[in-house]
Amino acid sequence: MTRIGLLHPGAMGASVGAAVNDNGHTVLWASQGRSAATQERARRGELQDVATVPEVLASSEIVLSVCPPHAAEDVAAEVAESGFAGLYVDCNAVSPERTRGIQRIVEKGGADYVDGGIIGGPAWTREAGTRLYLSGLRAGEVSACFADSPLSAPVISERIGAASALKMGYAAFTKGSTALLTAILGMVEKEGVRADLARQWGDAFTAQTVRRVCDNTAKAWRFEGEMHEIAATFHAAGLPGGFHQAAAEVFRRLAGFKDHAGPPDIEAVLEALLKQE
Amino acid sequence: MTRIGLLHPGAMGASVGAAVNDNGHTVLWASQGRSAATQERARRGELQDVATVPEVLASSEIVLSVCPPHAAEDVAAEVAESGFAGLYVDCNAVSPERTRGIQRIVEKGGADYVDGGIIGGPAWTREAGTRLYLSGLRAGEVSACFADSPLSAPVISERIGAASALKMGYAAFTKGSTALLTAILGMVEKEGVRADLARQWGDAFTAQTVRRVCDNTAKAWRFEGEMHEIAATFHAAGLPGGFHQAAAEVFRRLAGFKDHAGPPDIEAVLEALLKQE
Repeated sequence: MTRIGLLHPGAMGASVGAAVNDNGHTVLWASQGRSAATQERARRGELQDVATVPEVLASSEIVLSVCPPHAAEDVAAEVAESGFAGLYVDCNAVSPERTRGIQRIVEKGGADYVDGGIIGGPAWTREAGTRLYLSGLRAGEVSACFADSPLSAPVISERIGAASALKMGYAAFTKGSTALLTAILGMVEKEGVRADLARQWGDAFTAQTVRRVCDNTAKAWRFEGEMHEIAATFHAAGLPGGFHQAAAEVFRRLAGFKDHAGPPDIEAVLEALLKQE
Repeated sequence: MTRIGLLHPGAMGASVGAAVNDNGHTVLWASQGRSAATQERARRGELQDVATVPEVLASSEIVLSVCPPHAAEDVAAEVAESGFAGLYVDCNAVSPERTRGIQRIVEKGGADYVDGGIIGGPAWTREAGTRLYLSGLRAGEVSACFADSPLSAPVISERIGAASALKMGYAAFTKGSTALLTAILGMVEKEGVRADLARQWGDAFTAQTVRRVCDNTAKAWRFEGEMHEIAATFHAAGLPGGFHQAAAEVFRRLAGFKDHAGPPDIEAVLEALLKQE
């Protein structure tokens, strides 16, 4: 059984830790400086608190980084400085180019690197269908830790960047098309033809779209950075990044719904979207 | 019964002319300088050839402009110069701002203006479900010409720009999301994870997406301009235009499939998309 460090048990990370913990491995985390919500999630996942990040790193063979995309390099740098020489898995929503940059940081410290990309929501149950895609020479060792756990962890390549590219490609449509629909509703609202577009779309598609746009606003604050990562991925592949630069701007304008009690109504969403011209 | 001039019977225009012709009105067109394919479509629609544009204008109470978006001002200018003082309907895929510019051209010549936007494919049968949305003070007179015809022609507003905005909003998703999916397939191809994304998407969505992307290529050459119109519409509403600037670039790269015999396979589409980095 393997000792696995988890940096850090956010909404997604805690469920990833719980999955591997259920599987008989030991999952360590560092409560120092983390919020009450994080502590509660770690408790739910029955993760073992060793207080500090250096303690996590000193005691783990594998370290999983699950954090907001903007923090990925900082977490990697802290690990590299500690001299961690085990296996480091970056599970974050970053571009292939950026994951290779994080790989260089981590390998300088003496660790080996595995690229990860999570598709789906928090993985508390198998029914969630969440996958942690993995790539890299030692990806199989990480995958083995999740065998028969609620989180499926397929290895797709030996190449660092493959798992991140797959994550970017999948999110490019789910989140990109939600942003596009949000912007379209804003435009027809501004032009005074929203009811007409709803009639043309039909009741079912309109209702589904409005629900999707409104439900999404709670997560908009953390999608802006991911959209910039996807735009960078498209650029690096020689394709136009405008779809996701625009999506980033749409989500930026909706960031204020982060702590909203329940999904806002569509009028409030469109007002926020259109007010920052 | 009304005499209606049609400029010009392209793939869409001919079906619009045929719809109003079926309805007992007389539809005039000008064969001078038009292609054999246009002549054949006009014959199919049983449109009446009066040889020249000045002759069409001299004999019509209502003129419908159905042409590629880039030509909309040229057609309007020719009509204005002739002194046409009837009712001019621009049915083209242009932004609200641009339709108001075309209105100014046409009104200077002495005509009244109606804004139109066509949603759907050629309207040879009622089953096609195609709609010609209309807006403007005299939109009702145009709509009446299509009563009980295969083409539904609802009036949505007295405001010039409303019909164009609705058309832009609808096409923004249908064509914009097709362009997005095309770019995603290009990115995952370039990154070597196309088969992995197909597995994540599942067989049904993947097959449907590949078919949609490939079938669309035949029309890509004429979508570039329309995507720029949608981007301009978003900008004018204070929203980011990047989605459709990127879509314009995607369609530009696929313009070479215009005269391809049948839909190309996905490998050929992605090669064309990725070759022009």
